[in-house]
Amino acid sequence: MNEKFAELKTRLAEIHDIDKIHWVLNWDQRTMMPHGGAAVRAEQLATLEKLRYEKFGADDLGRLLDDLRPYEESLPYDSDEAGLIRVARRDHAKARRVPPELRAAMARTASVASEAWIEARKQSDYSLFLPHLQKNVELKHKYVECFDDADHVYDILLDDFEPGMKTAEVRAVFDDLKKDLVPLIAAIAQKSDAVDDSCLHGQFPVDRQREFCLAVIKRFGFNANSWRLDPTVHPFASNSCTTDIRITTRYHQDFINAALFGTMHECGHGLYENGVSPALERTPLCRGASLGLHESQSRMWENLVGRSRPFWRYFFPKLQAAFPSQFGGVSMETFYRAINKVQPSLIRVEADEATYNLHIILRFELEQEIMEGKLALRDLPEAWNARMKSYLGLDVPDDAQGVLQDIHWSSGMLGYFPTYSLGNIISCQIWEKALAAMPDLYDQFERGEFMALREWLREALHKHGRKFTPTETLAKVVGGPISVKPYVNYLQSKLGDIYGLN
Amino acid sequence: MNEKFAELKTRLAEIHDIDKIHWVLNWDQRTMMPHGGAAVRAEQLATLEKLRYEKFGADDLGRLLDDLRPYEESLPYDSDEAGLIRVARRDHAKARRVPPELRAAMARTASVASEAWIEARKQSDYSLFLPHLQKNVELKHKYVECFDDADHVYDILLDDFEPGMKTAEVRAVFDDLKKDLVPLIAAIAQKSDAVDDSCLHGQFPVDRQREFCLAVIKRFGFNANSWRLDPTVHPFASNSCTTDIRITTRYHQDFINAALFGTMHECGHGLYENGVSPALERTPLCRGASLGLHESQSRMWENLVGRSRPFWRYFFPKLQAAFPSQFGGVSMETFYRAINKVQPSLIRVEADEATYNLHIILRFELEQEIMEGKLALRDLPEAWNARMKSYLGLDVPDDAQGVLQDIHWSSGMLGYFPTYSLGNIISCQIWEKALAAMPDLYDQFERGEFMALREWLREALHKHGRKFTPTETLAKVVGGPISVKPYVNYLQSKLGDIYGLN
Repeated sequence: MNEKFAELKTRLAEIHDIDKIHWVLNWDQRTMMPHGGAAVRAEQLATLEKLRYEKFGADDLGRLLDDLRPYEESLPYDSDEAGLIRVARRDHAKARRVPPELRAAMARTASVASEAWIEARKQSDYSLFLPHLQKNVELKHKYVECFDDADHVYDILLDDFEPGMKTAEVRAVFDDLKKDLVPLIAAIAQKSDAVDDSCLHGQFPVDRQREFCLAVIKRFGFNANSWRLDPTVHPFASNSCTTDIRITTRYHQDFINAALFGTMHECGHGLYENGVSPALERTPLCRGASLGLHESQSRMWENLVGRSRPFWRYFFPKLQAAFPSQFGGVSMETFYRAINKVQPSLIRVEADEATYNLHIILRFELEQEIMEGKLALRDLPEAWNARMKSYLGLDVPDDAQGVLQDIHWSSGMLGYFPTYSLGNIISCQIWEKALAAMPDLYDQFERGEFMALREWLREALHKHGRKFTPTETLAKVVGGPISVKPYVNYLQSKLGDIYGLN
Repeated sequence: MNEKFAELKTRLAEIHDIDKIHWVLNWDQRTMMPHGGAAVRAEQLATLEKLRYEKFGADDLGRLLDDLRPYEESLPYDSDEAGLIRVARRDHAKARRVPPELRAAMARTASVASEAWIEARKQSDYSLFLPHLQKNVELKHKYVECFDDADHVYDILLDDFEPGMKTAEVRAVFDDLKKDLVPLIAAIAQKSDAVDDSCLHGQFPVDRQREFCLAVIKRFGFNANSWRLDPTVHPFASNSCTTDIRITTRYHQDFINAALFGTMHECGHGLYENGVSPALERTPLCRGASLGLHESQSRMWENLVGRSRPFWRYFFPKLQAAFPSQFGGVSMETFYRAINKVQPSLIRVEADEATYNLHIILRFELEQEIMEGKLALRDLPEAWNARMKSYLGLDVPDDAQGVLQDIHWSSGMLGYFPTYSLGNIISCQIWEKALAAMPDLYDQFERGEFMALREWLREALHKHGRKFTPTETLAKVVGGPISVKPYVNYLQSKLGDIYGLN
């Protein structure tokens, strides 16, 4: 049996290598590759996809997994070995459901649709994008048909990003969230003059921004031996293995937030991957458990750490020293209030901590209606604009700032959006546990010490990688299922304080 | 038949993708990868090797190539289609000769030996390297045994780098070269004070070096849309496709030559790959025909262009402007003489144009004696030092500056060295043809114009890629076989002028 397990490990390691090579090539394309390399790079990635399918979709891999069932059952559920067989079996079964021709059609259509989306957004002309979105959605329906009946058609899509999570669960969670969030945002809107964020706009030389961002994330665990930080248009986190973590950020000359909080955000993603147990290296378990759990880590370092008073008690004097003409005459409290300002706005990626979730709920609802066939795609801009008015009180001036703003639908990534807000919610559940375990955490932050938090997260969450389901993983960390209470408490308390609501 | 040919093209394209992915990962490792990524990267590269062998060594690929023989014979020899089948058949036959276990053993041993070599060189202790070199050579003998008897055991090794070239041919060529080169170097040694190169040493800020190097190679054809230039310890040229060319260079703060001529050298390699016909993209023909021909291009741009008076008539004022305190008071003639100074020295990569070849001949002779079993590896340092004394009149103070200086033997690359001097020789054969075709070439250089040369090289040489054998390719460009005469003429004329020998 050990021989069969060894064979499984070897085969999965090769497949994992193919995946990680894909990641490195993708990172290269977005940070380093000369533009002229794009056409051949697309072919190289397609070849990797094909190789992956040949290896992972193979009949005899299925038989090997079947043969290993008694061995798996003889092992403790928590063991790496049992986890590897369990997860590989689930991944394999799922991969086999989808014919390679459909996968190829989805990839090709998404690639064409992404190009069309760029042009449509540039011209703010939804009609240019509509036929491509229609094709993407048609293929999504074909994709859904590959699987057994689910409670809701959207369950199948959600499962690709948040395995095991049901649409009904997300709805219940988001309804809970909306119940408290909408009145909170309304109350803040009454006091919109209470916070002045003008100090965040000015002149910020890029090299000094980079230097400051590096100084911050070095205290989070970034080190040159295992990490890189590079500039990109669309920030992301990637990696080749647990000791080769690559994050990117973008620098605006006139606004420091993008780089500052973006870097902390991506570093949070990087720390999750960096913290997976080395024993899981080169296995399919060597990755975060879901996008929601991943986002809980990026949002934690960005918001719960990076937008906190204790953090800035340590870093604000350093920020002033780096940008003396900008912040020399600004108090820490003014700065703290500025970076936590709440204001309804049109663009999701620029939204504040509170209104961000309404952007997500809007998309989540529209996606369900699209997949249920209740909303015709030609009517999507109208539905978008109506909901923006209803949730955020905003009139959408054009589709570029409305329905065309995000890349997700052009890439065929329906079912992805909810994980952003799930991440926000989960981050506060984990945060409560971390604070309970380390009551002096904020004192540590004031001294510029973040390693205890990182170690705690590593031990509680990161090291497991994908060994357990997202639900099991969350239960291990917080002792129960997803719950909005800690997140709502956090927002009410922090924003109530800033806006004088309490 | 067209269907079978289409299948061959598809399969070869995938194999080529795997090769180019390997190149990109290798480039990444040497320029971008955090050190911590090394162990897993080695596994990723090994997986790619394995995938390549599974695809390229497959029985049915051999059958497909057999089936295509009548089709090949029905096509013009010069056609891309015939070339593709012909080259693929040769590559396939060669690949099938070597069992994957031997390939794996060679790769593993080379990897360990390279690490040992780094340490041995650091300590200048040959005994630390000897057992690893012995293993490399043992495996080389096993490798040689995979092939039919050759005229000389070394032929098999040479064929990996200079396909079709025989040891006896190289010997004859090098004997010719030595005959004229040794007296030339001796005559120059009598006038060693004639050239003062002190102006090349001083203070050269790295950013300005990079800027100047970029200004030079932009006139050679470098452009941001299809090229990158990055810093590395050991400069090299790589690429992902003809429109994604990546070269590297190294900057010494106190000596400008490394970056200046190194960049032109690697740009020459890049121009070759950049100039292969787009019709050959994603085929095994999309590459230079041999290392010798490749080196002819790098050496041509480095030496025949970059160390010429007309080149510096255009660029020297710009160099003075970039480094005014260094070159403001230096005449162009002084600078020209300095960059062409001939002086026997211990280290190959720092050698001048003339003595460089003696370093190569020394290695070529030792490699043959090793493979013939005439020279025991434990006696290698002694043999090295004796020959350095005889050829260059130098005493080798330690093995770090002697037998341990190059990486090649640690990586198992025996048979590689001769291609460096073959490149020098070929570069002048091609140069004579280029000058005959464009009599005003030097006038163009004086105006900073290099595109006519690039276009001529592209049309005469680059576009063919690997469609023809190196011998056929050279004959297409210069109308005959390799010949040292143009190279000797060039050195005698140029150095005779500088050293007042004529």
